[in-house]
Amino acid sequence: MPVPAMKESDVDVLVIGAGPAGLMCAQGLARAGVNVRIVDKRPGKVAAGQADGIQPRTIEVLQVGICSYGLAERLLKEGNQMHMAAFYDPSPEGGIHRTGRTPDINAPTARFPFEVTLHQGAIESIFLDCLRSMGHEVERPVVPESLEISDNRDALKDPQARAVKVVLKHVDAPEGKDTEVVHAKYVVGADGAHSWVRKQLGFAMEGEQTGTAPASLSDGPADYVWGVVDMIPDTDFPDIRNRCAIHSNNGSCMVIPREGDVVRLYIQLTDEDVRDVTTGRVDTQKCSAEKLLEVAKKSFHPYRIKAKGDILWWTIYIIGQRVASKFSAHERVFIAGDACHTHSPKAGQGMNASMNDTHNLIWKLTHVLRGWADISLLKTYELERRKYAQDLIAFDKEFASLFSKKPKSEENPDGVTQEEFVEAFRTFGGFTSGIGIHYAPSTIVDAAHQASASKLIIGQRVLPQTVIRAADARPYELQDLLPADTRFKLLVFTGDIGAPEQKRKVDELAKHLERKESFLGRFGEQKNDVFDVFAVCLSRKEDVVYTDVPEVFRPHWSKVLLDDVDTTGKVGAGVYEKFGIGSEGAIVVVRPDGYVGIVAPLDDVSVLESYFAGFFAKS
Amino acid sequence: MPVPAMKESDVDVLVIGAGPAGLMCAQGLARAGVNVRIVDKRPGKVAAGQADGIQPRTIEVLQVGICSYGLAERLLKEGNQMHMAAFYDPSPEGGIHRTGRTPDINAPTARFPFEVTLHQGAIESIFLDCLRSMGHEVERPVVPESLEISDNRDALKDPQARAVKVVLKHVDAPEGKDTEVVHAKYVVGADGAHSWVRKQLGFAMEGEQTGTAPASLSDGPADYVWGVVDMIPDTDFPDIRNRCAIHSNNGSCMVIPREGDVVRLYIQLTDEDVRDVTTGRVDTQKCSAEKLLEVAKKSFHPYRIKAKGDILWWTIYIIGQRVASKFSAHERVFIAGDACHTHSPKAGQGMNASMNDTHNLIWKLTHVLRGWADISLLKTYELERRKYAQDLIAFDKEFASLFSKKPKSEENPDGVTQEEFVEAFRTFGGFTSGIGIHYAPSTIVDAAHQASASKLIIGQRVLPQTVIRAADARPYELQDLLPADTRFKLLVFTGDIGAPEQKRKVDELAKHLERKESFLGRFGEQKNDVFDVFAVCLSRKEDVVYTDVPEVFRPHWSKVLLDDVDTTGKVGAGVYEKFGIGSEGAIVVVRPDGYVGIVAPLDDVSVLESYFAGFFAKS
Repeated sequence: MPVPAMKESDVDVLVIGAGPAGLMCAQGLARAGVNVRIVDKRPGKVAAGQADGIQPRTIEVLQVGICSYGLAERLLKEGNQMHMAAFYDPSPEGGIHRTGRTPDINAPTARFPFEVTLHQGAIESIFLDCLRSMGHEVERPVVPESLEISDNRDALKDPQARAVKVVLKHVDAPEGKDTEVVHAKYVVGADGAHSWVRKQLGFAMEGEQTGTAPASLSDGPADYVWGVVDMIPDTDFPDIRNRCAIHSNNGSCMVIPREGDVVRLYIQLTDEDVRDVTTGRVDTQKCSAEKLLEVAKKSFHPYRIKAKGDILWWTIYIIGQRVASKFSAHERVFIAGDACHTHSPKAGQGMNASMNDTHNLIWKLTHVLRGWADISLLKTYELERRKYAQDLIAFDKEFASLFSKKPKSEENPDGVTQEEFVEAFRTFGGFTSGIGIHYAPSTIVDAAHQASASKLIIGQRVLPQTVIRAADARPYELQDLLPADTRFKLLVFTGDIGAPEQKRKVDELAKHLERKESFLGRFGEQKNDVFDVFAVCLSRKEDVVYTDVPEVFRPHWSKVLLDDVDTTGKVGAGVYEKFGIGSEGAIVVVRPDGYVGIVAPLDDVSVLESYFAGFFAKS
Repeated sequence: MPVPAMKESDVDVLVIGAGPAGLMCAQGLARAGVNVRIVDKRPGKVAAGQADGIQPRTIEVLQVGICSYGLAERLLKEGNQMHMAAFYDPSPEGGIHRTGRTPDINAPTARFPFEVTLHQGAIESIFLDCLRSMGHEVERPVVPESLEISDNRDALKDPQARAVKVVLKHVDAPEGKDTEVVHAKYVVGADGAHSWVRKQLGFAMEGEQTGTAPASLSDGPADYVWGVVDMIPDTDFPDIRNRCAIHSNNGSCMVIPREGDVVRLYIQLTDEDVRDVTTGRVDTQKCSAEKLLEVAKKSFHPYRIKAKGDILWWTIYIIGQRVASKFSAHERVFIAGDACHTHSPKAGQGMNASMNDTHNLIWKLTHVLRGWADISLLKTYELERRKYAQDLIAFDKEFASLFSKKPKSEENPDGVTQEEFVEAFRTFGGFTSGIGIHYAPSTIVDAAHQASASKLIIGQRVLPQTVIRAADARPYELQDLLPADTRFKLLVFTGDIGAPEQKRKVDELAKHLERKESFLGRFGEQKNDVFDVFAVCLSRKEDVVYTDVPEVFRPHWSKVLLDDVDTTGKVGAGVYEKFGIGSEGAIVVVRPDGYVGIVAPLDDVSVLESYFAGFFAKS
């Protein structure tokens, strides 16, 4: 019999792995109109358990994710909100007692001042439905069998070359027809902690042992072995709907309330609970959901807690933190999510870091594929996200250690006091909220003119702030006007154009931008695909005449904004002050992912010309 | 050939007419699980034009409408928001100039301080999709042929009797199979200004001539003939996205910005424009969309305005206001919407009054059909809604007249000044917003103990206010916790239950309500279907122990609320003060439609017992 020809196909981007990082990537690229495919080796999405915490910054990111429905909208509808954290310590009368409550989120600029908790399957569904609405499906079960990057230097330099060859096996396809050779321009490996893509690239995981349970459970200090149980509780514990850190003399416990009436418990285990006395190794067979609950019950005393109905999901894990040595091979194959960083689940970072990895990558791939940006732009992915992962791991180590320690007492002089714990909890606010992410200077982060908008930190996400639309006095959250639609946002803070000197500066800037040689004008008819331009004026809604703003700053009537209160006088006003912009105005460039790229004085457009020349393709 | 037997069927409620009033009715009843059908003579929904304004109160009502998605959510997503009104007057230089801008809505307690504008077809779609998600469809084209109410007095007294016989003709069904006899317990006629149901009942329309154009256009003062045009404008007029009242020496004009870039113009017409000089009658043939725009252009001078592309819809009408003599026949057949009141479109009242008619009726029908309430409850529909319609008509006359008058000048000493107009616009705020609706005392509105919650006006809708949920410190808009789910809401303002005297009062109330004879206890297992109970405590989120509240007030952990700020300190707190409730507490009963039914002192439950005895069925 003749051997059938192997199926061959071309694609711009192949995403391997349909967890949160991969799904985020695929929906963003699909939305941008990029030719993308996503495959996964699992036959279906996660049914229960796994990650479940969405940070304030991630909610902001999903809020500006564009789909037929808001991604955050559904998250907020289906998920639980954690607003409050409660702390319990050993009580002098035995058992535990509450020593305090404090806001769960300590990030004053957070637009959503809470975390959302929802099981990973529900979060994946949001993305899957979004993909479906665009005619995309995850192909599964599909296993990658080989990956090869071209060694042709010219091909590697050409952003449009299909320089990566991946062989895929379609597990459910008939034999002989189950193998496909895919020629991709770019590949994203979002295939989890045991990433096959990472192994093909030969990238090492640096750091301490990782803790993907139960396969890799072996040894390590028993203090760091934890159990996780999802259930609907039957309890008289009055903080069951708050995040709780319980330090008892019978071990630590963390409570994470979830969607509906579900609660997750993280339960610290002891040698006795999990270790085989003869081998000294952690033995998963020693554990069960019931056993985990027995341990939890001791920590909760004098409160009673048991499951209403069945335990929904459980696992055990060992805390460990590792980061991949590299995140990118030749700017052709990238790894993202758990494939490049693993950490403890309790700080609720995993899924957030994963989705934000690909959120960082989507627009860069899109701009390169459209021929607008130079391929070197893709180098900033590793630069920005690996640094973040390292910071995250450092934070996580400290946080997890604090959590695993015993309460300080006469017998445990090295233990942690409640005050120390609460203080650390507060200090880590910027990190646990995700709000503190700060990208270092690079071709796309230029902080030289920070003074022009002194409080809008270049490299951080644009601050949330209500502005008023000039044409109809409607208040808008500025972040909502800057969706993740792969466009750069050009915010022209005009000052008061009623003042002749200011009007002159604004008109000159307009004249420059209308020139065909300017960074805006060079895109001709396409300029509104690459940039979304807004004017932000220092005028009152009662007497602004929005048609006075030069036309290049208002391609549509909706593009002129005001620093003013709304008609109720209750919301809005203060964007100039909040951003640290004076009445002389400024230009702010927000990257497509919502981070401030550069700020320039209103009368120095050359600064912007150099910025965009740094990564836009030569025309 | 034998004559085929006519199809006969039973239904609890038959709704005739699938405009906004009928659709609101059908979706509310369907959601409540009532056996309902809805028929309409038109083959499809409205495609363009017609009504388009949704008032702040109607948004609140849709917000608490329960469906798989929020009704208001989609309205807010698809519709335009009008926040600002602008006024133009004749300019000394000729043409018009702006004399001022003022908030479009003047209703300080409005939760949504704006009107939403969206064409009627889109609004109908929201309801149609909601019905569809529950497995319901509008049956169309279906024409009612006869309606007969039983004259059997026993049947009329029995709320479960099918006392109404309606013959329907299914226009598209094959001959011989197109006629159906429906035996209904109740019928709602929501079949428009020319209501067939109203005519069957013989109810007269009282008041001046009505203005459903173009059929009924005949005579009347020409000042009151107006044209309407929907289009996407090409204009340099700087208030094109605000509601504008333009008084020019060439006639009046009103601008209503709509969804997307659409704008509606209301254009005052003159004798010359519309009247046949020989007959003296209004002649629709004299008019066209182009002619209407020509008239508008004169009013807009010196600004230019024309249509971008085609005119989307247009009509002409004569202002007229009428109210039906009765809204109900034997509490078996009701009329709602345009079937019982017509008025000028410019104040944007029509669709709002219509939807609020059936919003008032849904829960009453449901309670009677479930056997919970006495059939006499249905008498309150006409009582409450006819009074409202009369007030509306009185307002509308004044408003429309003001709008049709010429600007005051030397030649027009009887004209209206801009100051008078703006002042009237502000004064009417409570009416145009829909917020001012105030139902008179009746079996379901008992204002005797108003002093216990002095600022929460009995008979008005419950005020919006942020409260904090005790179990998890999550802020909620109180209105959102009181959905239109046909349940009475019992808000127990407990005061500070840390105070022993207060705790004693609360415990006694709890003890009473747990008794089988109480208005709550008599429903046994069903009590949480009839009532939704909340405790609102004067406690701080940092130290409240929600499990201290008696169990009858918290059937679920989510039912205990606090008068406190949220974790950011920015929202919440003040519900006791806003409602005028002292630290001694009170009980507030909110009707299923969101209106305050009664307020009682915390220690006088007898007041509530009499209230519910007044309309609950004897058990």
